[in-house]
Amino acid sequence: MAQTALDEIATFLGDRLVRSKPDRDLHGQSETWFPATPPDAVAYPESTEEVARIVGICARHGFPVVPWGAGTSLEGHALAVRGGLCLDTSRMNRVLEIRAEDMQAVVQPGITREALNTELRATGLFFPVDPGANATIGGMAATRASGTTTVRYGTMRDNVMGLEVVLADGRVIRTGSGARKSSSGYDLTGLFVGSEGTLGIITQLTLRLHGQPEAISAATCAFDDFETAVQTVIATIQHGIPMARIEFVDETVAAIFNRMNGTDLPEKPHLMVEFHGSERAVTEDAERFGEIVSEMGGGHFAWATRPEDRNRLWAMRHAAYRTILASRPGSMGLATDICVPISRLAQAVAETRADIESSGIPGPIVGHVGDGNFHALLLIERGNPEELARAKALSRRMAERAIRLGGTITGEHGVGAGKLDLMELEHGPAWQVMATLKRALDPRDILNPGKVVRIET
Amino acid sequence: MAQTALDEIATFLGDRLVRSKPDRDLHGQSETWFPATPPDAVAYPESTEEVARIVGICARHGFPVVPWGAGTSLEGHALAVRGGLCLDTSRMNRVLEIRAEDMQAVVQPGITREALNTELRATGLFFPVDPGANATIGGMAATRASGTTTVRYGTMRDNVMGLEVVLADGRVIRTGSGARKSSSGYDLTGLFVGSEGTLGIITQLTLRLHGQPEAISAATCAFDDFETAVQTVIATIQHGIPMARIEFVDETVAAIFNRMNGTDLPEKPHLMVEFHGSERAVTEDAERFGEIVSEMGGGHFAWATRPEDRNRLWAMRHAAYRTILASRPGSMGLATDICVPISRLAQAVAETRADIESSGIPGPIVGHVGDGNFHALLLIERGNPEELARAKALSRRMAERAIRLGGTITGEHGVGAGKLDLMELEHGPAWQVMATLKRALDPRDILNPGKVVRIET
Repeated sequence: MAQTALDEIATFLGDRLVRSKPDRDLHGQSETWFPATPPDAVAYPESTEEVARIVGICARHGFPVVPWGAGTSLEGHALAVRGGLCLDTSRMNRVLEIRAEDMQAVVQPGITREALNTELRATGLFFPVDPGANATIGGMAATRASGTTTVRYGTMRDNVMGLEVVLADGRVIRTGSGARKSSSGYDLTGLFVGSEGTLGIITQLTLRLHGQPEAISAATCAFDDFETAVQTVIATIQHGIPMARIEFVDETVAAIFNRMNGTDLPEKPHLMVEFHGSERAVTEDAERFGEIVSEMGGGHFAWATRPEDRNRLWAMRHAAYRTILASRPGSMGLATDICVPISRLAQAVAETRADIESSGIPGPIVGHVGDGNFHALLLIERGNPEELARAKALSRRMAERAIRLGGTITGEHGVGAGKLDLMELEHGPAWQVMATLKRALDPRDILNPGKVVRIET
Repeated sequence: MAQTALDEIATFLGDRLVRSKPDRDLHGQSETWFPATPPDAVAYPESTEEVARIVGICARHGFPVVPWGAGTSLEGHALAVRGGLCLDTSRMNRVLEIRAEDMQAVVQPGITREALNTELRATGLFFPVDPGANATIGGMAATRASGTTTVRYGTMRDNVMGLEVVLADGRVIRTGSGARKSSSGYDLTGLFVGSEGTLGIITQLTLRLHGQPEAISAATCAFDDFETAVQTVIATIQHGIPMARIEFVDETVAAIFNRMNGTDLPEKPHLMVEFHGSERAVTEDAERFGEIVSEMGGGHFAWATRPEDRNRLWAMRHAAYRTILASRPGSMGLATDICVPISRLAQAVAETRADIESSGIPGPIVGHVGDGNFHALLLIERGNPEELARAKALSRRMAERAIRLGGTITGEHGVGAGKLDLMELEHGPAWQVMATLKRALDPRDILNPGKVVRIET
């Protein structure tokens, strides 16, 4: 079956269908603790038509198709857990159109967020969603990614206006429109964003862009304890101060940054903030934020006024996952990702810290606290199954805690293969509705099988 | 069949199942040109459990269920076009919980937007979405409604965080969570918002609230032609001035306001704007906007600084539909609702105006121009089928124009029964995907049948 499907695909992809071991191995890895599961082959399509043809052939043969972006997902999303064809989108990486007046761009899925913003630089516009990794836009849409600027600009849900999607039977559809809003039927764009390649393969995206702010100010500040840092975030939100970024790192992360990046931060819980707007607005926002921090007893302000200082600050924040991982040589990571109502954030962090401490596993914490979202990065010794089991149990308790506090098991990383076991707990019978939708759109379960939902075929 | 289902329902609803002609007639009407189509009976449930029981019985009997909010929809959404039971949500109209710290409210579907904001007043929070009518929150979610503040606060898509939904088989599910974002599986909240009661009955909503702005400034200004008004909107957006509202009314509407409301507006195209923020920010925004208007050659500024003046301004705007309708006694309305990319807005309005003029049907234009959304309200003489046919043809040409310009046939009113014939033109094969989803979730087509999609059963 596999052989026949692949031979058919090779007739038109030629040497862009690769069956060599190194390429399969490369596409069988993940960023975190998942065991390697190489696909049977890797395809490098260059057009929607090629993707549609590939999927059509796989559909006839009941052969799995697993889309691949930059391979930076954290829950094993792109692992070929049932074998099949890895569909690598790296050759579909162009900006097709920039509609500056409408603040939109039409892109292919394989472009990375950094490459996109480089192309946009001269237009005065930018695309704000910024997960830590330099992920592809297609992958970010598939996992409903977000990042440090979500508190102001939203997630991929808010910034994808329309899609071109190849369905499980090879049909090509377009969702959304160039209008900023629509009430024209079911929100198919929203359904495919976050569906992790299980309902269709994204081959084109229309993105909402934003104007580069006239002025930016950024700062770090430190607190004696994380509860005060969290209370400061809540107060800032309630004062209506429009933050573009408000990030938390705990004292362990501050120490790791000092050791690994040569910074000189007080080894205390920190907030890293940024304001976007007119010169006057940004100044006013920064002043009001400074007042709140003082009232709360925080301090150690370090303003990053020059662009290069700001860039260094956010580059350090974006690299936190890799820096933390490198701080314990020989370790692999399990990245947790819970998100709770902001009023429960202090409790969620406190309980998690206590749990981490008693577990004996290192778990520095960073968080997009304006969204109520935080990550403990659990550092597990490679080849230590006992430590992995302990970390998984810890991660499960975090997810259960998030649900108990009215939140969600994943704020931005997605379900992938890693959080399947928690879906029923979070969603109850609504998880069955997800499975119903999956069966309706992919009756043979060929699109990224084994992710998001469980289907008995 | 109908009789048996209704008798079963009466056993537990008692006199809250009404079969009298006046009540059926009341629920068989719509705000616009659609012929009356009364349901077989009207149910007034008071709890999710009752809704689930009702739907379960209707499912067994294959009997249609049509949810009803305030009856203010404009495309015949709540008409029982195939008979069945009208499920009136007016007795499920409570605020169940206000979570001030998280800026959330949990409400029942039958509460109206004005009643909700009255209850919120003391909290310092408000719910921004404001269609013209005092619609119910459930109805607004079902049609993915928006309004004058969407340019700043988004549509119902952006402001509904979670739902409780009764499915076609009577199961009850919960979607979303109390967290501000989530990547936990398919976005079911987004799927039910805008599904117009065809996929499930909304019985509870978790809403995102916003802080009442510290300061507000509002103004009207006039232009010699609408192209300049539209160019002013585009320039304002591109300057990154954060508008809370930016509304357009044409010279005919200005004249109608003068005649019907006793205002003294120049009878020219107008923009009505509002800014929200800190005192300083609002002043700065208003100044910068004023400069753009002057540069464009607009003027006749009238600032509404007192709350009562602002309230009068927006009450007038919200009542525009009814005021315009009343301006031609004996007429009924056909409310068009196209939305295009902002760069095509001037062209869309110009072509529409020319078409309206040559049609001989009065069609004053109002628009949420910051979103690229505008309405021509076509005034048709009651009982004049020839005029109705001409208005329908005009409306169809508007929708075709919207699609040609990269937009959508409905920015905020929804599809209902009125725009079914245009869905394939806008969505192509994606409309079939909507039907696939409908069949998966409502295989007997009992939930608001005949709306959004066409199902052969």
